[in-house]
Amino acid sequence: MAGVSTPALAAAVSQAGGLGSIGVGAAGATVAHEMICQVRQQTGAPFNVNLFVHKTPEVDPVCDKAWLAWLKPLFTEFNAVPPARLHPIYRSFNDDPEMLDMLVHVKPPVVSFHFGLPVAEKISVLKATGAILLATVTSLEEACVAEAAGMDAIVAQGIEAGGHRGIFDPAGRDDALGTFALTRILVRKCRIPVIAAGGIMDAAGIAAALALGAVAAQMGTAFILCPETDADESYRKVLKGPAAFHTRMTDLVSGRPARCLANRFTGLGDSAGIPPLPDYPIAYDAGKALNKAARNCGESGFGAYWAGQGAPLARAMPVDQLMGKLKDELQEARSFGM
Amino acid sequence: MAGVSTPALAAAVSQAGGLGSIGVGAAGATVAHEMICQVRQQTGAPFNVNLFVHKTPEVDPVCDKAWLAWLKPLFTEFNAVPPARLHPIYRSFNDDPEMLDMLVHVKPPVVSFHFGLPVAEKISVLKATGAILLATVTSLEEACVAEAAGMDAIVAQGIEAGGHRGIFDPAGRDDALGTFALTRILVRKCRIPVIAAGGIMDAAGIAAALALGAVAAQMGTAFILCPETDADESYRKVLKGPAAFHTRMTDLVSGRPARCLANRFTGLGDSAGIPPLPDYPIAYDAGKALNKAARNCGESGFGAYWAGQGAPLARAMPVDQLMGKLKDELQEARSFGM
Repeated sequence: MAGVSTPALAAAVSQAGGLGSIGVGAAGATVAHEMICQVRQQTGAPFNVNLFVHKTPEVDPVCDKAWLAWLKPLFTEFNAVPPARLHPIYRSFNDDPEMLDMLVHVKPPVVSFHFGLPVAEKISVLKATGAILLATVTSLEEACVAEAAGMDAIVAQGIEAGGHRGIFDPAGRDDALGTFALTRILVRKCRIPVIAAGGIMDAAGIAAALALGAVAAQMGTAFILCPETDADESYRKVLKGPAAFHTRMTDLVSGRPARCLANRFTGLGDSAGIPPLPDYPIAYDAGKALNKAARNCGESGFGAYWAGQGAPLARAMPVDQLMGKLKDELQEARSFGM
Repeated sequence: MAGVSTPALAAAVSQAGGLGSIGVGAAGATVAHEMICQVRQQTGAPFNVNLFVHKTPEVDPVCDKAWLAWLKPLFTEFNAVPPARLHPIYRSFNDDPEMLDMLVHVKPPVVSFHFGLPVAEKISVLKATGAILLATVTSLEEACVAEAAGMDAIVAQGIEAGGHRGIFDPAGRDDALGTFALTRILVRKCRIPVIAAGGIMDAAGIAAALALGAVAAQMGTAFILCPETDADESYRKVLKGPAAFHTRMTDLVSGRPARCLANRFTGLGDSAGIPPLPDYPIAYDAGKALNKAARNCGESGFGAYWAGQGAPLARAMPVDQLMGKLKDELQEARSFGM
């Protein structure tokens, strides 16, 4: 949930007894440090710091140029010109020694990885801080790699999940496993604990995840409408409307497959002759620039409105109220004998 | 599960306290009648008869010819020639008055519909027999149509499910909802009971479906390895092997999207220049002919090995043993407080 998650959101979730998560994948070490400090100012409870561990992007100016040329008519529609060049706007944790140093210094209680795993040395260094380490996986194969690398638990990310798919190799085969099958396969075949993610929006979903043998449920979309997030008004409006029933997995926005509410940008996926995409997050530089140009003309259809398939069940209320509801509902579900 | 389900399978499931289902969508009224009689000879318990209610296929000889021409190199590889013409090998229940007459005569306790709904008159006639009517749906939109048409319950078919996707309009938008999100959305938004389907392979899955608010779980892939099915040896072998981790949704086999174990036939989906497919089940005539030609040469990679994403969890044991295990496991899960 980098993009809309805030220290206030993470702190409120942790304060209410969950494990709040602060996504720092899109931030540098300095900003990440500030965010972590803000969480700690608001709660003494444990929290999680989520990092992006994507493959180092290959800079390919010819590819970037072709991609920008393809997007050019859209920039023109919004009276803008494409950027002259594209840049890898975030660093992978594997390429970011300052981030590791900062984490060793601030010692967050839980650290989670998305898009892959850090190199063995970084894992050892983080483990030595006492951090519990989690990794998002989308298949049994990735789960086995995470287990062997020393992760303490794995997040089974079903195809329903909103935002970026955590698949390690975006060019590899994706069996697109749903939360139901993936969670159950990992619980049956792995030795480390499994946390279920994707399509879980309420206590019934949490109870279902636990019934599948998961030790916990990870929820993102369920919190987007909370006032504590950074989601802007048009994001909230679209999420509350009929579009919530139509999410789509697309790599056009960022260069990596991610699930968001279907809009004009995702609709480009039906176009013929889409050129090869610049690597994540280079493509995202173009996606953000196009969204900015469109927004300047009052067109919000190029925003990355990340959302999972459970989007129609999102509830707009402060985090403490939502967490209270989830706890009450779960208590009720359990006393009912399920 | 038309294709591998048998009267013996349905009867054994019902006899063990489940609701066995006999798929007659690929059969005419006479064969369907025999199958129903066979179920009744083996059990006095209630059972379900599943019907295909696909859109009447448009016969288009030009399209058929182009499709066969595209497949021709494969027929040639297996020393065969494509059929001269293709035929709609099954009738939709809506186009099959004999099937309705037979059902009115034999009065099965439960009747379920796949690919769409019968016309109102047929629904009324079936309701008058006392049958409980179920319809497979893949979205809230379809669920609302089913509810309005007088269905007694809906089967929420998640994208994980094996075999044919029950989407009403194969040319329409498919939001590909997973079992988790779809079940929960339908439970929250519909008034009639919801049965969860897709990726459910064991009692933990059943418990999860019930936790989501479903009244029951529908399982198909979980039974394929039972000796009571018609699955042939190569199907069983593939399902027991590493291929079980890789299912794929394809319309190339039959003309309608269906999930099966990835093989040479599904791999054709990556080809360039795939011509428009003949309507279901006309395309299936070609798919079956190609599989036959390949099998004659010892190549089993063109079979329709329908399977859901939970395939690696399928258990090879007689139905009564499997049903006993499911009951024991569910009892255990419930006494554990979930």
